[in-house]
Amino acid sequence: MDTKDLAERILNGERRALARAITLVESGRADHRAQARELLAHLRGHGREALRVGLSGTPGVGKSTFIEAFGMMLTGQGLKVAVLAVDPSSARSGGSILGDKTRMERLSRERNAFIRPSPAQSHLGGVARRTREAIDLCEAAGFDVVLIETVGVGQSETVVAEMSDLFLLLLAPAGGDELQGVKRGIMEIADMILVNKADGDLKATAQRTCADYAGALRLLRKRPQDPQGFPKALTVSAVEEAGLEAAWQEMQALADWRRESGHFAARREGQARYWFESEVRQGLLARLETKRARAAMADLAEEVAAGRLGAAEAAQEMLEHHLDAVMPGLDAAASGA
Amino acid sequence: MDTKDLAERILNGERRALARAITLVESGRADHRAQARELLAHLRGHGREALRVGLSGTPGVGKSTFIEAFGMMLTGQGLKVAVLAVDPSSARSGGSILGDKTRMERLSRERNAFIRPSPAQSHLGGVARRTREAIDLCEAAGFDVVLIETVGVGQSETVVAEMSDLFLLLLAPAGGDELQGVKRGIMEIADMILVNKADGDLKATAQRTCADYAGALRLLRKRPQDPQGFPKALTVSAVEEAGLEAAWQEMQALADWRRESGHFAARREGQARYWFESEVRQGLLARLETKRARAAMADLAEEVAAGRLGAAEAAQEMLEHHLDAVMPGLDAAASGA
Repeated sequence: MDTKDLAERILNGERRALARAITLVESGRADHRAQARELLAHLRGHGREALRVGLSGTPGVGKSTFIEAFGMMLTGQGLKVAVLAVDPSSARSGGSILGDKTRMERLSRERNAFIRPSPAQSHLGGVARRTREAIDLCEAAGFDVVLIETVGVGQSETVVAEMSDLFLLLLAPAGGDELQGVKRGIMEIADMILVNKADGDLKATAQRTCADYAGALRLLRKRPQDPQGFPKALTVSAVEEAGLEAAWQEMQALADWRRESGHFAARREGQARYWFESEVRQGLLARLETKRARAAMADLAEEVAAGRLGAAEAAQEMLEHHLDAVMPGLDAAASGA
Repeated sequence: MDTKDLAERILNGERRALARAITLVESGRADHRAQARELLAHLRGHGREALRVGLSGTPGVGKSTFIEAFGMMLTGQGLKVAVLAVDPSSARSGGSILGDKTRMERLSRERNAFIRPSPAQSHLGGVARRTREAIDLCEAAGFDVVLIETVGVGQSETVVAEMSDLFLLLLAPAGGDELQGVKRGIMEIADMILVNKADGDLKATAQRTCADYAGALRLLRKRPQDPQGFPKALTVSAVEEAGLEAAWQEMQALADWRRESGHFAARREGQARYWFESEVRQGLLARLETKRARAAMADLAEEVAAGRLGAAEAAQEMLEHHLDAVMPGLDAAASGA
């Protein structure tokens, strides 16, 4: 594959080139990985700096409807919008989010919108890498806003927050004054809370819920990356398309403040470091997945299970005799078994 | 150090030899690790099969008082009891559990009891290994019951369950009929729930709480490793020393059933495999902690943060040029950079 040519076509905004490139970064084949790295190297520094907006919401909060309405509002303003997804469950469930584009039929027909379902990977680490690289590709293709959607499952919210400039939590109106069992950790990483379904019979409940969350947010420790008044809780109605522009203005205000204060760039730098370190660890652990390593592991695990070897002893054996010669360049004395 | 001599003294039941051996397995020094592996190899197959009982309870449920009363009851029956702890927070807090033996003053004076605080390690993986090896040492020293205590912090309950034959959850009486925010995952790994403080004014509440949990346990899917009627919820009173013998009888009944059905051995085998694999992964990742590896990581992270290298590209560079020659024996074609 001519990755230089593909890079040029992406920079020219050719959608098919973008789609093909995303397929490339989603592949786990070693030669595809090498091409993907080459492609990303060609594109580095040439794209637009999009606003990367992470969005988490459990099933039932109206996430698809919100993204469609919000996306239509943005394209209506002449902005180019990409929608990506991080869904570690999709491999198991056959795609619990963004399984097909029919969920966002209007938006998927928009010329300035690009919707891509979550890659079918059961491993969150794999989904994370592919999504991060897809974000880079979308930026190179000139998108202004990249929405990264996730369901609130396990670590997926943290993963999405670690690749977003802004992280939004979408919630449904809750009866009573009880917070909806939202984990404190998630509240702490949310840059904005949007209470959806502020329409019809639920409007008053949505407003009450919003006030509750606004109160809860005020109780959290002030974060240096927030200007006065943030993080905020707002109500929106995806079906009535109400509150969307106000929410977008708040997001822009927050992003602008962070750009000026240096927090925006600092966050991206911190994320880049984080993902680099995470990639190194994953790459190292992948060495255990080769056929020969797995066979050696299986043999030693038998010995351990039968009580003929201790766990630490067997691990030492694996590292020294099966994975070693491991880094003579780095630590010859220690590894010279 | 003469590890063969130390092994013999442990097998003879010398407490000072046991204490010294635990100090050895707690050390992170490479030469100590080698001696620890040697010592454990000498002991393998020579000890008693203790009943390993994991016990989780948040601060305030009366964990120390329970362990002391339960331990005294066991030593009163002529059994030898060891108490270990898994507390990843101890390095930070200066020891939130078992920080000193004065918490269990009576038990610590018993000839047939051995109490060991959690090793001062901030890393849960490190605490886990040291505790597992300390369990092996206690078995070699002839203990009948090894209690492994943990606070319910993060993953520590799962870690303790993975090194126990039985895993108990100790809870306090709760007002109302609401379950105490016990995570479903913890309910699912609990083999028995003990509601403590079933005495005085709290007695009725404790019984109601116990009935609630018994109901919740019945709603969980039946597990193959449980005989009819398990997992159970029982009330105990550590201060009145009530219900302790009944709880112990249930534990023994469960352990006996599992021994006969093969689940006991199967669980230990599965745990041995799990810890072996975990040790290999930890050992591999430890290669990133050498001085030269850290320096190379830091340099590359700078490049990534500055946007001059992509995360995947930099990770590839790290793995190929700084950690490689990595396993020519295993995968010469792929790593031949």
